Amino acid sequence: VPETNRRVLLKSRPPGEPRPSDFEIAEGPIPKPSDGEILCRTIWLSLDPYMRGRMKDVRSYAAPVEIGGVMVGGTVSEVIESKHPSLRPGDLVVGMDGWQQYASSAPTGLRPIDRSVAPISTALGVLGMPGLTAYVGLLDIGRPVAGETVVVSAASGAVGSVVGQIARLKGCRAVGIAGSPTKCGYVVNELGFDAAVDYRRDGFAEALRDACPNGIDVYFDNVAGPVLEAVLRQINRGARIPLCGLISQYNATEPPRGPNLAPLLTNRGLIRGFLVFDHFDRFGAFVNEVGAWVRNGELRYREDIVDGLDAAPQAFIGLLEGRNFGKLLVRVSEERPVAGG
Amino acid sequence: VPETNRRVLLKSRPPGEPRPSDFEIAEGPIPKPSDGEILCRTIWLSLDPYMRGRMKDVRSYAAPVEIGGVMVGGTVSEVIESKHPSLRPGDLVVGMDGWQQYASSAPTGLRPIDRSVAPISTALGVLGMPGLTAYVGLLDIGRPVAGETVVVSAASGAVGSVVGQIARLKGCRAVGIAGSPTKCGYVVNELGFDAAVDYRRDGFAEALRDACPNGIDVYFDNVAGPVLEAVLRQINRGARIPLCGLISQYNATEPPRGPNLAPLLTNRGLIRGFLVFDHFDRFGAFVNEVGAWVRNGELRYREDIVDGLDAAPQAFIGLLEGRNFGKLLVRVSEERPVAGG
Repeated sequence: VPETNRRVLLKSRPPGEPRPSDFEIAEGPIPKPSDGEILCRTIWLSLDPYMRGRMKDVRSYAAPVEIGGVMVGGTVSEVIESKHPSLRPGDLVVGMDGWQQYASSAPTGLRPIDRSVAPISTALGVLGMPGLTAYVGLLDIGRPVAGETVVVSAASGAVGSVVGQIARLKGCRAVGIAGSPTKCGYVVNELGFDAAVDYRRDGFAEALRDACPNGIDVYFDNVAGPVLEAVLRQINRGARIPLCGLISQYNATEPPRGPNLAPLLTNRGLIRGFLVFDHFDRFGAFVNEVGAWVRNGELRYREDIVDGLDAAPQAFIGLLEGRNFGKLLVRVSEERPVAGG
Repeated sequence: VPETNRRVLLKSRPPGEPRPSDFEIAEGPIPKPSDGEILCRTIWLSLDPYMRGRMKDVRSYAAPVEIGGVMVGGTVSEVIESKHPSLRPGDLVVGMDGWQQYASSAPTGLRPIDRSVAPISTALGVLGMPGLTAYVGLLDIGRPVAGETVVVSAASGAVGSVVGQIARLKGCRAVGIAGSPTKCGYVVNELGFDAAVDYRRDGFAEALRDACPNGIDVYFDNVAGPVLEAVLRQINRGARIPLCGLISQYNATEPPRGPNLAPLLTNRGLIRGFLVFDHFDRFGAFVNEVGAWVRNGELRYREDIVDGLDAAPQAFIGLLEGRNFGKLLVRVSEERPVAGG
């Protein structure tokens, strides 16, 4: 066990785009687990857009990170010391240990990882919270029917890539919206989407119309903003819009206006906000169904890995600008090889 | 039977607020019913905000009125000549005969009126399409639970007044939003709403907050625009927003931006557009339940009556500006007293 714990703290609340100076890298002692607790070494840290909301001092579904507090985040960790009967050193767990190298906590809410299912980093992506978000948002809120057209924004990201692939596996036409020709090519050629449209190109709305010749039945929205507005103009009667994220406005200093809702009325459509935290009861069904698809290669994923905790602030800033390509992960420490493996 | 049929035609499509010159009053021959048809004399013509949409040449849920065509509208009429076995002269029917004194049509979709239930004009208001709109929008889309807070805009109007009263009868706190102190006083003192807020006053959002100390669970939206934006900032977790109308923007030359949807995400809320035409299967339940409340005085209504077809254009223009007070009706001709009544 080393001597110090490196952590990334929230130093100041950015009004707009976060800057590296809004974070502070600090060293402190390794926490000591009390009875009933475990000490974990972080292997993987997940970076996700929702974290931008936790940097704001506003009432929301979760408490903000305090100034001087450790940034929140999902982690895959190895137990290195245990004072809890259910876990032993060497066990791997998914938790919310945040942007730090070590954390001591009661194992409530931790989920053990089975290394044999898939690489352990997938517990933060395709087989973790982003995957579950895609699964419940698409299937439970969007309720697609085979033959319908499903559109998803941030389509090459951790959530969107799963949404489109599940849509395809359920017999729908899957159309992705992404922020570069490379990302668009990836979702079509690597993930098997039927089409993809670059929202940064001229004539985006027309290109979207070409990609959706039968209109749009389900729009899984990760971004809000002008993309949502354009999609709304092309929805079919009875369209469903699971509202999962608002990436386009997380850095806004003033809440921007939203879409004109006239198409929702004339088409009897619905927009429904949801948070994955309300749907953990679906985790079993999700892991069974999506886990099988991942194992047999029907559902693919891409990871965008940065090395070392110190790289987390810059990587997170890039995530909000769409500079990542796939599920963004920080390799905080090396996974140790399994004994005898 | 008189010699001519006075009609109001659409003369031009206004880009913004309709002007009287966008309508043309024309005289023509009384139509002759063919076999299977009936000739009706219009007694009451309903004026409703949806008609503004029919003046636009855009794809929507219903075809636009043609230039030179009779303005569409719901009517209560008396059969004066019948070539259909099911109806006789003197029968009263609800139909869509439009802005004219006489109409000849097959009685498909006509609904006979029983004079003994309530005044026949109510078939265009509290016991007609506006009442059904309130009933299905509130109960089927909004799904209020006793003890919740229900807010409704255009609260003194044909739909809103019914929404708030049903909410009260179902055990909810009913809060109206209306456009003058007089209208606000009416919905509280005459209709029994728990509170009402004038959206034109300074500090509207704060006044709404005071009127909804436990937040907002259901918002029945007739107006969209800034009122919807203000309401969204005060919704509770799991709020439901039936989107019924967009009065604030019917005269807009460009579709205005809409509300920021962040509160929908953090509160897991839903906005659902609906059109009453999809819900006629609920008419029986509606008439049973609301009819009983009207008869026993538990549910009240107010009519804003203008006399003569020629007054229809100006009255309709005023409706879009909120100048009516209650269900707006045109008395096109007199109801004849019932023989022996």
